[in-house]
Amino acid sequence: MTNTTATNSTAVITSDDFLKNWQAHRALSRRVLAAFPEKELFEFSIGGMRPYNLLVGEMTGLASAGMNGIVTGKWETTPALDHFNDEITLTTKAELLEAWDEVTEQIDVLWPQITASRFQETEAAFGQYPNTIINTLQYLFDNEIHHRGQGYVYLRALGIEPPAFWDRF
Amino acid sequence: MTNTTATNSTAVITSDDFLKNWQAHRALSRRVLAAFPEKELFEFSIGGMRPYNLLVGEMTGLASAGMNGIVTGKWETTPALDHFNDEITLTTKAELLEAWDEVTEQIDVLWPQITASRFQETEAAFGQYPNTIINTLQYLFDNEIHHRGQGYVYLRALGIEPPAFWDRF
Repeated sequence: MTNTTATNSTAVITSDDFLKNWQAHRALSRRVLAAFPEKELFEFSIGGMRPYNLLVGEMTGLASAGMNGIVTGKWETTPALDHFNDEITLTTKAELLEAWDEVTEQIDVLWPQITASRFQETEAAFGQYPNTIINTLQYLFDNEIHHRGQGYVYLRALGIEPPAFWDRF
Repeated sequence: MTNTTATNSTAVITSDDFLKNWQAHRALSRRVLAAFPEKELFEFSIGGMRPYNLLVGEMTGLASAGMNGIVTGKWETTPALDHFNDEITLTTKAELLEAWDEVTEQIDVLWPQITASRFQETEAAFGQYPNTIINTLQYLFDNEIHHRGQGYVYLRALGIEPPAFWDRF
């Protein structure tokens, strides 16, 4: 391989790149969560969609249970993580922010335990969605941006200026 | 490096992986565009945000001018691509879909011209945003998911069921 020839197999993103980009996005997602007024976080919605607390619950639940499954092969939440999947039990913004920070730390702790070969293994994520581990991680990443973008609309509809999307570098 | 030891530099995503994932997302984005009613595509908005035709114009404009800059080093649109940046001149959904398809083809044609070393070069994207080429590509990718997520809210607010987010595999 030379640098003047394009190849399909050129590595463009490393494990470390992926983690850094995800955590930078998660820091932005945390600021979007923090920008919601307490009441509207749990009550406001548009077009019959879920209020933002449930979208945040999905983000933390998938990230937490996902990282656990990726590292252990057990696609179940541990008792200590159950509250992320049962997000409705978190009833204040402060609790959601605290859960967010726990997951941030959990990702940083578990990530180095993903072996090099593990990323390319195929497994049914959450016992239901067969995919490679890296594609499952990509899904968690993409899904968070998707729902956070919806949070931007909620904030705008509430007359609140959201954090800048590009403020991650 | 062994497979039982995690390393920060483990390659997890290749050039081909990135392109395939982007184009799969772009196919979903096209379906979201197609789901808008003609009139509301250009007029409907929430909270003072741009109507969806302008968000689509941003997606196609950044992708087209971005790919051109990445391959040529000239961060200017060519005359043939100018209409993507001046999206307001596209006044029908059919024209936006046609532009979308042109950009899809453009990406497929230009992508193999990105050399292996190019992905890691640092350059001011669009003459303004210094970053590595892969990070600029990642930005275009992330930005599209972000704005498309907003399109989902518009569709829901209009009483329209959006295409399934997960239907990309």
